[in-house]
Amino acid sequence: MGLVVQKYGGSSVADATSIKRVAKRIAQAKKAGHDVVVAVSAMGDTTDELIDLAHQVAENPHSREMDMLLTTGERIAMALLAMAIRDLGLDARSFTGSQAGMMTNADHGRARIVDVTPTRVRQALDEGAIAIVAGFQGFNTDSKDITTLGRGGSDTTAVALAAVLGAESCEIYTDVDGVFSADPRIAPKAKKLDHVSYEEMLELAASGAKVLYIRAVEFARRHGVPLHVRSSFGDDEGTWIGTPREGSRMEEPIITGVASDLSEAKITVVGVPDVPGKAADIFTIVADVGANIDMIVQNISVQQSGHTDISFTLPKEDGERAMNALRAKQAEAGFDSLIYDEGIGKLSVVGAGMRTNAGVSAQLFRALSDAGINIEMISTSEIRISVVTRADILPEAVRVVHEAFGLDADTDATVHAGTGR
Amino acid sequence: MGLVVQKYGGSSVADATSIKRVAKRIAQAKKAGHDVVVAVSAMGDTTDELIDLAHQVAENPHSREMDMLLTTGERIAMALLAMAIRDLGLDARSFTGSQAGMMTNADHGRARIVDVTPTRVRQALDEGAIAIVAGFQGFNTDSKDITTLGRGGSDTTAVALAAVLGAESCEIYTDVDGVFSADPRIAPKAKKLDHVSYEEMLELAASGAKVLYIRAVEFARRHGVPLHVRSSFGDDEGTWIGTPREGSRMEEPIITGVASDLSEAKITVVGVPDVPGKAADIFTIVADVGANIDMIVQNISVQQSGHTDISFTLPKEDGERAMNALRAKQAEAGFDSLIYDEGIGKLSVVGAGMRTNAGVSAQLFRALSDAGINIEMISTSEIRISVVTRADILPEAVRVVHEAFGLDADTDATVHAGTGR
Repeated sequence: MGLVVQKYGGSSVADATSIKRVAKRIAQAKKAGHDVVVAVSAMGDTTDELIDLAHQVAENPHSREMDMLLTTGERIAMALLAMAIRDLGLDARSFTGSQAGMMTNADHGRARIVDVTPTRVRQALDEGAIAIVAGFQGFNTDSKDITTLGRGGSDTTAVALAAVLGAESCEIYTDVDGVFSADPRIAPKAKKLDHVSYEEMLELAASGAKVLYIRAVEFARRHGVPLHVRSSFGDDEGTWIGTPREGSRMEEPIITGVASDLSEAKITVVGVPDVPGKAADIFTIVADVGANIDMIVQNISVQQSGHTDISFTLPKEDGERAMNALRAKQAEAGFDSLIYDEGIGKLSVVGAGMRTNAGVSAQLFRALSDAGINIEMISTSEIRISVVTRADILPEAVRVVHEAFGLDADTDATVHAGTGR
Repeated sequence: MGLVVQKYGGSSVADATSIKRVAKRIAQAKKAGHDVVVAVSAMGDTTDELIDLAHQVAENPHSREMDMLLTTGERIAMALLAMAIRDLGLDARSFTGSQAGMMTNADHGRARIVDVTPTRVRQALDEGAIAIVAGFQGFNTDSKDITTLGRGGSDTTAVALAAVLGAESCEIYTDVDGVFSADPRIAPKAKKLDHVSYEEMLELAASGAKVLYIRAVEFARRHGVPLHVRSSFGDDEGTWIGTPREGSRMEEPIITGVASDLSEAKITVVGVPDVPGKAADIFTIVADVGANIDMIVQNISVQQSGHTDISFTLPKEDGERAMNALRAKQAEAGFDSLIYDEGIGKLSVVGAGMRTNAGVSAQLFRALSDAGINIEMISTSEIRISVVTRADILPEAVRVVHEAFGLDADTDATVHAGTGR
């Protein structure tokens, strides 16, 4: 039996009872003969509460101190988990990011892992102990300061450890049963998927699926670490990512899932002079303030010839910053006006089978138009098609598309009140 | 202007508002020209809450993990404090016990400091920054594990830093105005003392006064660090410990203060054979289970000749352990029976002037007997006399003795709802 890395998110360790339940699960894996390494997040909403506390004491909390503050959440969870496992009679030791050899750059709040040297973790495993590692954190050897890895940090910790330690698999425990063919809260007929490829998972995560972060999936893909997303509240198999599909000679499903995203806004720059470089100027202005542009559409202006309208989507939290930057440079950029629209929703269909099958776009557009749903923007990749609609009809659009591509289950999915974290 | 070390206890940093108030005070000291180093405790009741959480997940929380868990409290406080000070425009950096060079042995939960090498703290000061150090914690270089220093740990951190950095003084901020001549909650006429010697403070702390821990006072005495115990809620001078009294050629007051202690219980071992070694056996049995014996009285047995009764006091929390150990070895020790009494109180008068003045004991016993208060046990040192009375009359005894030795203020002390921590 080999090494398995297990990651438990905040909702799985939300209180003492949950911690004891997770401890039993970990002990079970050890008793079954595995070497076990665990990456754990902070309990429940601890991280958000600490961020809130920081903003109560300072308007602009310093990033180095913020990392010092936030990393206490995972330390508390890991120490309690180690105590609970020891109480069951097994040897368990907790390790901070630093003690686990998680070396990062100095980018506080979103540090990149530069090296992983888990010497003490290996030693603990050799001595028959279970290693509990604090997720979401690392250590910068230059400044000797603690760093945090940014969103999805605990998933990244788990996958990085799995890669370096040569684990058989990396189990991501959460409060939903796995990756679903659509968000079961808006599409009750969504099915739990048994298997998803790395690429499909990347597209789903980028398109709004919240159960895994892109960065961790990419890390897993690059190092060939199989991921298993499953619920910490039962023993059923979840969703495998990165392992070959059963009967892999069979054709892959054309569409694996439908992702939905209500976190973006749309900015339309009206009347951009249709001259080389002007569009680039617009995007440079927006990029310079750190806003992440997603979909882009350029239309011939309806107002005036020789001009074009450019629309793009971006996270709502970047919206104000981008609008302010554009307004400030309106004269030099030369556009007429700006329209800010927070009422959009993004729907994406993802499927590896799209590569070898024509007609997927047509099927998608037909299904939506038959339901009277208007498409405002379109963007595609090899295995994904995204469309923008009005936010209020996004749930209906998801259900329509889910059914149109034959993804509906025979009975409605059991919807846990989970967040997928 | 020199270096000052400031220590803030849990009640001084209990919430965001308190932290901001403390940040202003620290900034004030810096702007006045001092180099400032701060040792800080966990916010409010955080430590107790974490201990409670630990006992919810495990019956016997492992000591290494407990230290990992508890040290998060001080880390949270120090990071928030550094953020708040930076928000006021000053450079402030937080340091864990490890980052501040607080090296200890491996005794988890009550580690001893073996060396202090505050390189990063000195560097921060040289660069004009304020250094915030997490109290109560250190680092064992052999195991590379975090340790906690036990009760009064934050005071010890502060004094150790003050000693090694050569600070002018170490200010201990708390929620009472200073060291009082008696506990103002039971003796309203108690006065805040302007000055107390190291020895007197040691005796007061050992005798029940909770405002400073013995260990920190001893550290200060050994390294000649002046301590200033004062309230974090105002600007008044508190109590100086270890600086020469004003007009030091004048005679020292005979009695400086009256300490009271309700935390002890009394065990009487009845009918110990009056044979060499038997008493030593009794104390060995008790010491072997880690119980701390305080006062000891040996009386000729009233029951039978050739036998003696031995009474001793010890912390209530050690009582059950000691009683069980004695019962288990009753046959070999040869005593007749045991009496356990939790209804005792200990009163101590402390004063450096006792050395050169006869009659203090007589004055004490007279005052108590005049008030009809019975003395059950007596114990003395060079500058302290302790007596045991019934617990329920201890408050009255304190008031009687306080008045008899001329310590009463003209008006009642303002009693803050403080805990002295």
